[in-house]
Amino acid sequence: MADRELPDVDVPALTALLDGKYADIRQLTRKNLAEYAGVLDDAIEMPREEFRERVLELVKLMAETGATGLGFPTEYGGGGDIGASVAAFETLGFGDLSILVKVGVQFGLFGGAILQLGSKHHHDAYLTDLVRADLMGCFAMTETGHGSNVQALGTVAAYDNEAKEFVITTPDDLSRKDYIGNAAAHASMAVVFAQLEINGGSEGVHAFVVPIRDEKGKPLDGVRIEDDGPKIGLNGVDNGRIWFDGVRVPRTNLLNRYADVTEDGRYVSDIENKDRRFFTMLGTLIQGRVCVGGAGITASKVALAVAIKYANQRRQFGSPETGEEELLLDYGMHQRRLLPLLAKTYALHFTQEQLLAELHNVLSTTDAPDRQRRALESLAAGTKALGTWHGSRTIQECREACGGAGYLMSNRLGALRADTDVFTTFEGDNHILLQLVAKGLLTDYSSSFGDLDQLGMVRFVAGLAVETVLERTSAHKLLERIKDVLPGGKDDSWDQEAGLLDPEYQLAMFRWREEHILSGVARRLKRGMDQGMDAVDVFSRVQDHVIAAGRAHVERLVLETFVDKLGPMVDSDNKVALAMLCDLFALSTIEADRGWFMEHGRLSSARSKAISREVSGLCRRLRPIAEDLVDGFGIPPEMLKAEMLHGPDVRSA
Amino acid sequence: MADRELPDVDVPALTALLDGKYADIRQLTRKNLAEYAGVLDDAIEMPREEFRERVLELVKLMAETGATGLGFPTEYGGGGDIGASVAAFETLGFGDLSILVKVGVQFGLFGGAILQLGSKHHHDAYLTDLVRADLMGCFAMTETGHGSNVQALGTVAAYDNEAKEFVITTPDDLSRKDYIGNAAAHASMAVVFAQLEINGGSEGVHAFVVPIRDEKGKPLDGVRIEDDGPKIGLNGVDNGRIWFDGVRVPRTNLLNRYADVTEDGRYVSDIENKDRRFFTMLGTLIQGRVCVGGAGITASKVALAVAIKYANQRRQFGSPETGEEELLLDYGMHQRRLLPLLAKTYALHFTQEQLLAELHNVLSTTDAPDRQRRALESLAAGTKALGTWHGSRTIQECREACGGAGYLMSNRLGALRADTDVFTTFEGDNHILLQLVAKGLLTDYSSSFGDLDQLGMVRFVAGLAVETVLERTSAHKLLERIKDVLPGGKDDSWDQEAGLLDPEYQLAMFRWREEHILSGVARRLKRGMDQGMDAVDVFSRVQDHVIAAGRAHVERLVLETFVDKLGPMVDSDNKVALAMLCDLFALSTIEADRGWFMEHGRLSSARSKAISREVSGLCRRLRPIAEDLVDGFGIPPEMLKAEMLHGPDVRSA
Repeated sequence: MADRELPDVDVPALTALLDGKYADIRQLTRKNLAEYAGVLDDAIEMPREEFRERVLELVKLMAETGATGLGFPTEYGGGGDIGASVAAFETLGFGDLSILVKVGVQFGLFGGAILQLGSKHHHDAYLTDLVRADLMGCFAMTETGHGSNVQALGTVAAYDNEAKEFVITTPDDLSRKDYIGNAAAHASMAVVFAQLEINGGSEGVHAFVVPIRDEKGKPLDGVRIEDDGPKIGLNGVDNGRIWFDGVRVPRTNLLNRYADVTEDGRYVSDIENKDRRFFTMLGTLIQGRVCVGGAGITASKVALAVAIKYANQRRQFGSPETGEEELLLDYGMHQRRLLPLLAKTYALHFTQEQLLAELHNVLSTTDAPDRQRRALESLAAGTKALGTWHGSRTIQECREACGGAGYLMSNRLGALRADTDVFTTFEGDNHILLQLVAKGLLTDYSSSFGDLDQLGMVRFVAGLAVETVLERTSAHKLLERIKDVLPGGKDDSWDQEAGLLDPEYQLAMFRWREEHILSGVARRLKRGMDQGMDAVDVFSRVQDHVIAAGRAHVERLVLETFVDKLGPMVDSDNKVALAMLCDLFALSTIEADRGWFMEHGRLSSARSKAISREVSGLCRRLRPIAEDLVDGFGIPPEMLKAEMLHGPDVRSA
Repeated sequence: MADRELPDVDVPALTALLDGKYADIRQLTRKNLAEYAGVLDDAIEMPREEFRERVLELVKLMAETGATGLGFPTEYGGGGDIGASVAAFETLGFGDLSILVKVGVQFGLFGGAILQLGSKHHHDAYLTDLVRADLMGCFAMTETGHGSNVQALGTVAAYDNEAKEFVITTPDDLSRKDYIGNAAAHASMAVVFAQLEINGGSEGVHAFVVPIRDEKGKPLDGVRIEDDGPKIGLNGVDNGRIWFDGVRVPRTNLLNRYADVTEDGRYVSDIENKDRRFFTMLGTLIQGRVCVGGAGITASKVALAVAIKYANQRRQFGSPETGEEELLLDYGMHQRRLLPLLAKTYALHFTQEQLLAELHNVLSTTDAPDRQRRALESLAAGTKALGTWHGSRTIQECREACGGAGYLMSNRLGALRADTDVFTTFEGDNHILLQLVAKGLLTDYSSSFGDLDQLGMVRFVAGLAVETVLERTSAHKLLERIKDVLPGGKDDSWDQEAGLLDPEYQLAMFRWREEHILSGVARRLKRGMDQGMDAVDVFSRVQDHVIAAGRAHVERLVLETFVDKLGPMVDSDNKVALAMLCDLFALSTIEADRGWFMEHGRLSSARSKAISREVSGLCRRLRPIAEDLVDGFGIPPEMLKAEMLHGPDVRSA
């Protein structure tokens, strides 16, 4: 493959494109990060207790700049712009991630719950103080024995008709609140998720405002708190466990936007269905998931910047004739290890941008249709899963690509890896999230979306007639768009080497895969139930297939978003460079799943090999501009202070 | 697939089988680990400086038991048994890995260099003290700018004819010794690898004994030492940097087993070829690589024990009818995530056992043929690469499979992951090691093995006539064994569902892949050079293919070893269980590379799907005995003190 003309990347223009609508907010956050860059060393050197206090201090300082309260209404000192708040949060991912998570806990989870689940009197009572970080709080949902299955929480909030109070109780150790950020040291208040009981009957999980510490920081009567102790990373965040022993709070401490208890102990709600009510409440908390996915993508950018810059300086082996060793980045394997990850980072960036715009639209109105909300929840779940897995994988590959130097904490990769590691399992375990995505597809975001657990989904699909399975899933819509452009359709020319770089071909492959996996899952679920198997067994056996369907769907959206982003751009060298990244993302994704495509007759062996050659060729062509492409991320230089990039002049080796 | 009868695993018998020849030594090490189990908490809680001293103390205590000096001659207080010393080291992998690495640095690298590269007067001078851990030393090979390419080291040792001394000098910062274990605090002596210069001429890299600290621990004149600072893990080991500024040592401090400098400054060696001499020296240090690979496999066992036991206690979601949630390990996806890793751990265990036996045989004699030594080096390199990658991947998957609980340091997975992370890149970067393996295959371990760098290999292969390429590689030997048993051979019955569990079929697939990749690499190297490309470019483009060849070779050896291990075993339930693990390893390996097999016409799409079904079926069948199979590893209970396994009674949820 002949090398084409090399695009001359305009780095500032690329940064402007990536920053998009919220460029000003992102710049403000970069400035904050640069000002407090010393925290990167503190994270490594300070003892845990001391570092926690340092992080708290910085969160309060950032709150003063207004950068952390952008999502709250202006009347409470916020910025009134949800999109801007997520953009600011994502940008924090360039820096120390304990700060990012502490900000997320305080303003996203704790503040978000009060904002989204509470009424005006809760807002009036708490928002101004919490936006200032004067009132620190925590989000007490997860329990030791109950994580992803929030409906199974054990904590009880029983209504006392006489006292007009809720009595919060932890019935057993499996129901202690666990892993709760801000709980071990700094929160004076908790939003506690508990089973609401009225007159002995259960109304399901609701959220309550519960004070947990006095002004001196001592746990209040009936509240027991334990430190979760050292963690793999994020040791600037004080995670802890909480037990409640008959803790009483006034009736009005129920966050009552969606349901309330009257003084005389009647349960009232505008949403009749119990499951639907629960998932509507949960749905409002979507922002946390969007933020974590974005943070995973941002962290990937830092890791790639470090590893690609290092590979462009460090030499190893080479030609004995010249006596000069080769740069790591000139090795084909090194390109193959890093550059597809760079391409995927760009792809995910644009998906995240799209998600942020959707989120802003939906949360900024009160009347978004249910279907739009469900599609947003699905996109948020899928992007979070792919973005955080990508983060873990990318940072790890970058660490290994930097050898021994990458193992030193002074080179940033260690902290990035350790801090982001939990992203794949918190705010929704990634596997569970992809199941949610698949569930939405299988039920075509029907009104039953939130109501169905995994077994409900199995039964829903199994209850359809064979011929309607496909029509009732989202798959049939894709089929319409596919049939003309894939081999076997009208145009036979596809089965040659040509066309690999045609976005229509790439998209058709992604769409066909999604449709095929989805309908396969539907058939297997149906067949299992028809054969009289237990729904639990049916789900267990088809589970990996369900998750594959979710993944294929999200990957298709990611590619579509990238292609759509490029379409309207005016011609420029930057567009050429981005198109190369888009091709590399598309083809390396197909390559990674080529076994599946061949199994299903959509890829000949010759064409599969051609794709692998093209991926290698794209890596070679991108290699000279790789450093420009990481510079385009606009990472503040203070955040790239990896010692190995500024130590002995490796360039002159 | 109908479930077959479940084998009733005899756990003690399984442990005895795995412990093999060195059961007594492994038991002694287990006892040591259990006695000092508190170090697992120290590793988390102690400040770095304090923890380093604690690790030093424990290493000295273990040295007193004799467990760390097993590989040294009895006349110096050692055990005179190389195999036993590696077995003991591997077993240390159940415990804190800073101790393991400190033991490896002191007795394996430092002690090993003096033993293998020195003469009797070096042995007499140092071994007794170092076996007792009274003389602590370091192995100063790697430099900041020179890692895998040891021949390019920058440190110089110039012979002073007058003084009859070597003058050791660090010419620039890229040539400072870096990442050197024991250097930052505890070593009083270093084995320094440096370019030997005599009368201005260079004789290549040699090793010298160089004192670096006085009795009070202060660096000696001309020696500058800097701490490498905090690392991702292994913070009980004091890694550091060393600069030498004209440091003088007597002529007899050259470790002169393979080459010497006479008093009057003549260079003498029995090995004429300079490259060959160098690689002969390096080859004697193979034990470190064997140990690291073994440690990676051992660490995987601990992680799997933690994750599988947790998954057999923790419940999540499930049937609303019964009201009971399902155990994590009953989910198909969870089985798919963990059980193939368990199977591969068993497979690698037996390869490591075989490697250890080979190592013992070769190192215990002085006259092993060159070819046998080279094959051993190749096996050690490949097992290290696969074992350590497997360790990283397995521990990470186990961490994620334990959700938030896995993120707490109290649950062991964090320390395991952080400590083992560097295994993939130290003692030889894994990619470079697989290149070494491929080089051995491409040159059929010819006498030029060690002499060739990667470009030498390109030219060697390119220099062969087309028809002899295959004959001169190892591939043709495999071909002989393959042709009768694969589709396209005599027997057409293979292309059905049947036969998947036949080891002959599985082996034929592994062999065919190795042969095909290897001959493909040879052809591509030759073609590139024939087309007039630069050897550097040719290598860069074919590099991922070269590495794939190395991997395919090692995977074939791993499967062969497992099958050979099972063959002579008497029938028993344990044998049945091991055979299931062997099948799962074989089929999940084929499944992971099914894209390649289909591309090359060796797997029909129907058969590929059948393999995936069989992998799922094997996971289901192994699920009930999964906990027995991790119990078989014989991990001391004190090493499995993960809080989540002993906290709230999750079993009764």
